[in-house]
Amino acid sequence: MGIRLGPNRYGKAESRVVRIVRDTERHEIRDLTVSTSLHGDFTAAHTDGDQSHVLPTDTQKNTAFAFAKKHGVASPEDYAIALGSRLLEATPYATGAEVVVDEHAWDRIEVDGAGHDHAFVRRGGEVRTARVEVERDGVHVTSGVKDLVLLKSTGSEFKGFLRDDYTTLDDADDRILATALRATWRHSRADGVDWNASYAAVRALVLSTFATTYSRALQETLYATGRAVLEAHEGIAEISFVAPNKHHFLVDLAPFGLDNPGEVFIAADRPYGLIEATVTREEEDRWP
Amino acid sequence: MGIRLGPNRYGKAESRVVRIVRDTERHEIRDLTVSTSLHGDFTAAHTDGDQSHVLPTDTQKNTAFAFAKKHGVASPEDYAIALGSRLLEATPYATGAEVVVDEHAWDRIEVDGAGHDHAFVRRGGEVRTARVEVERDGVHVTSGVKDLVLLKSTGSEFKGFLRDDYTTLDDADDRILATALRATWRHSRADGVDWNASYAAVRALVLSTFATTYSRALQETLYATGRAVLEAHEGIAEISFVAPNKHHFLVDLAPFGLDNPGEVFIAADRPYGLIEATVTREEEDRWP
Amino acid sequence: MGIRLGPNRYGKAESRVVRIVRDTERHEIRDLTVSTSLHGDFTAAHTDGDQSHVLPTDTQKNTAFAFAKKHGVASPEDYAIALGSRLLEATPYATGAEVVVDEHAWDRIEVDGAGHDHAFVRRGGEVRTARVEVERDGVHVTSGVKDLVLLKSTGSEFKGFLRDDYTTLDDADDRILATALRATWRHSRADGVDWNASYAAVRALVLSTFATTYSRALQETLYATGRAVLEAHEGIAEISFVAPNKHHFLVDLAPFGLDNPGEVFIAADRPYGLIEATVTREEEDRWP
Amino acid sequence: MGIRLGPNRYGKAESRVVRIVRDTERHEIRDLTVSTSLHGDFTAAHTDGDQSHVLPTDTQKNTAFAFAKKHGVASPEDYAIALGSRLLEATPYATGAEVVVDEHAWDRIEVDGAGHDHAFVRRGGEVRTARVEVERDGVHVTSGVKDLVLLKSTGSEFKGFLRDDYTTLDDADDRILATALRATWRHSRADGVDWNASYAAVRALVLSTFATTYSRALQETLYATGRAVLEAHEGIAEISFVAPNKHHFLVDLAPFGLDNPGEVFIAADRPYGLIEATVTREEEDRWP
Repeated sequence: MGIRLGPNRYGKAESRVVRIVRDTERHEIRDLTVSTSLHGDFTAAHTDGDQSHVLPTDTQKNTAFAFAKKHGVASPEDYAIALGSRLLEATPYATGAEVVVDEHAWDRIEVDGAGHDHAFVRRGGEVRTARVEVERDGVHVTSGVKDLVLLKSTGSEFKGFLRDDYTTLDDADDRILATALRATWRHSRADGVDWNASYAAVRALVLSTFATTYSRALQETLYATGRAVLEAHEGIAEISFVAPNKHHFLVDLAPFGLDNPGEVFIAADRPYGLIEATVTREEEDRWP
Repeated sequence: MGIRLGPNRYGKAESRVVRIVRDTERHEIRDLTVSTSLHGDFTAAHTDGDQSHVLPTDTQKNTAFAFAKKHGVASPEDYAIALGSRLLEATPYATGAEVVVDEHAWDRIEVDGAGHDHAFVRRGGEVRTARVEVERDGVHVTSGVKDLVLLKSTGSEFKGFLRDDYTTLDDADDRILATALRATWRHSRADGVDWNASYAAVRALVLSTFATTYSRALQETLYATGRAVLEAHEGIAEISFVAPNKHHFLVDLAPFGLDNPGEVFIAADRPYGLIEATVTREEEDRWP
Repeated sequence: MGIRLGPNRYGKAESRVVRIVRDTERHEIRDLTVSTSLHGDFTAAHTDGDQSHVLPTDTQKNTAFAFAKKHGVASPEDYAIALGSRLLEATPYATGAEVVVDEHAWDRIEVDGAGHDHAFVRRGGEVRTARVEVERDGVHVTSGVKDLVLLKSTGSEFKGFLRDDYTTLDDADDRILATALRATWRHSRADGVDWNASYAAVRALVLSTFATTYSRALQETLYATGRAVLEAHEGIAEISFVAPNKHHFLVDLAPFGLDNPGEVFIAADRPYGLIEATVTREEEDRWP
Repeated sequence: MGIRLGPNRYGKAESRVVRIVRDTERHEIRDLTVSTSLHGDFTAAHTDGDQSHVLPTDTQKNTAFAFAKKHGVASPEDYAIALGSRLLEATPYATGAEVVVDEHAWDRIEVDGAGHDHAFVRRGGEVRTARVEVERDGVHVTSGVKDLVLLKSTGSEFKGFLRDDYTTLDDADDRILATALRATWRHSRADGVDWNASYAAVRALVLSTFATTYSRALQETLYATGRAVLEAHEGIAEISFVAPNKHHFLVDLAPFGLDNPGEVFIAADRPYGLIEATVTREEEDRWP
């Protein structure tokens, strides 16, 4: 019974690319973490140590920096499409290139009520993400956000669940709901999209749906959010969520003669609930 | 065009379960991080907030701790099979349960040349992993190791690679090869396996193959390692690797009047190469 | 030659205290990580295992949660003073209590142009800090900020430095200056201070001074910032900075036929410069 | 009331220096993280942006790598003394140089029962540390270990402690005691010491004392350990400990019809107890 190479890919992960646009005195900054990879026919590198098909990961890194200059970074998606297309073009034996970009946001420092021309403070909080797959027959773009930490201090319950011999949890009528959301949405086309406007609109809708939806479970909140995004954006084919349930437990203050009607909580680290869900369109098959 | 729920699952992640066996004065310790999840028909929880099919993640956590007592932890795999089977049994609408276990190893503290009965020092280094999928029609077991940091100070080259306009890398005849290996191997059956003996044998073979194989690329080293494991263990159907290439760059000491024939390196953090490969048997389709 | 106990203290670190104020429909949130410790005469606990002087760290934790209800969290400083005073009062053999608070900021989620009543998004970025030392004879308050990541894309040089045989660095006329600032400022008194207003004013001044000061070294920028804070705030006795120099190296794009006039940088992880400086008043001795 | 510069220092943090000794076919590896800093008269750099006294942090880094070749790494302490002496010699306006080294241990990979010549696996677990302060009038050496994770599954109690209105903790007759120890010991002289032998002996004594001492509190264990080290090593002037109490809480399995006599625990992350203590000699003043 023979042994063979199965799925494989290789690339350069986490190049920290910072691009300053300084065409005028008012600078712009784009701060990216870029990972690239190639897949295709690289069997000989594995079985015979033959590198003749292999574009080095060092070259992939060089290309990532060069394209920040040559092509620029109008958006993570746009930059990733250009970079992935170049890597595929340069590597005849590859069948596809993947580029994953995290963008770290900066705000201008405020001086006398106005944003400074060339001084910035990192915004922190969520990270904007893009994943672009350039195949020989097309380009697939998935935009997203991660580390988006959300909390509702009321408007959340959890009750009526299945019980067994190991169930001790009580129904909760009013609890804190908190998560560090990762959402990724796949676009149905890769050209003619204003990626920055699309990102801003989806992000705002995710936030407002979370805020205004009464939650009978984190699952329901995610589905409602996904539904809202798909209804509002016909160019989005599918949206997926990874949502840790960041438990906030009500602290029992009765031993100290204090009541605690939803006021003092301990934020727990581990374990945590973990909910994953995709919302899609009827006719969609999940790609790839 | 309708909108519907796509793939989804939920569970409790990273319960820190510590089991002391104290039947005699010579205690044993098993130290686990346990994550469980269920998938199946949980649509109503998403679309209508109806939890009647949903075994709470809190119950999953309770079961993880109870089974550390009731069933014990002979091995991560054995414990995970028992736990996953129970979760599936308790949740009629689930079609499958997944249990992922990380095991953190401890050594006995040495006192007067012998291991102490009840005092331990954490071994550190690599983490043993197990992933068990209990479906209605069977059980699938994947064992593994992560954070296994390996280094060869010679016996590694990288040359003859594809070059393009963005290539500046020179051929390397003798370089440091280092990685923080993650390897996972899927067993072809789930019963009658001595999981602890199997783990020890695979781990030893991964290490010795890395040590003794001349490397013309990290890809070749991974393939050789996978091949060795499959050849020696007929019960293993497939093995996959995720291997960051932890670059060690030779430092140029010439400005200081010093030569540096492979003696002083800077260990870089980011970016890093990232190689992923699966080695499988001819007739195997990747499961699932 | 005898052996004795030297300096010692004990406490509970990193209690995650979340306080919701829900007196009206418009909730407020204060999200704190609280560490407390006691020092004093705890020799018997060390030498004889006698705990009769020791208020358990578990009790310290309970008190931290109870005081979030009983005293509330008008500001980290105010809460820490109350908590530290209580711990010292409860522990006759202690000579002092220290309370360290990190505050994690949240913004209201914007819905239809207005902040929502009870839904929040974590702001990320910098963390507000307070350290309060309650001694038998007085209270000392140090406010601060950490993880404040700042960057100037021009207006920074570094030249004219000392050179020796191991120096290869060239003068830089125009470079990126970036840091993840930690600043802590000690107040000369502990009562009658509007801690929230003081924090906001100092933070704004730190940011604007960084932005508007031409930098001939990170040291000069820190000193100018400290001077500006002390000049503007007579109630602040001293300010200290810990400032990693987060290097952004200009990428050489010449091999690819591209010039790079300050546009494309690689953000490095390690090693990094590390600058520490205190700015104080003439008559001040550093306390304690 | 004037404003002036207070305490300050600067340096290069976390250079990742890897030194291979390959004089024979049996290679040796020393893997270090090196941080250096200088203090002295650097006022002009702060107040006037004048760098003429300042040896760049880039030069400090170069020197760290060059000395790994030129001087070698017989031990972290020995290397740090040489490096700190050089930095002080090169910087006339400095009054002192500090070098902090973390050493990451590697084991030879075992092949056919013997350690391989040039293939290594990172040991993980604790990190050996050294801090050397080179002043104009002498050298001070502090050795240490961190991330040494220890656990006793019995032989530990905690009872008879002080109680107040916020105390809910019960006496514990038999609990798990676990910590991630950081210990640092200051030597009374800097020459004529076999640093590697000294480290090995202290580490072994810390471990065995932890194992064999019945613990009525973590404080007592630390003091006993420090006492044992000072009694056995007359060249050590003082030893300090930072010891988080890594709580392992007994899980209540009674709701599931199971008893739990010290067998199943949940390992908690936060909050944690934090004990700090120094053990010294009668006549010692803490230096500096």
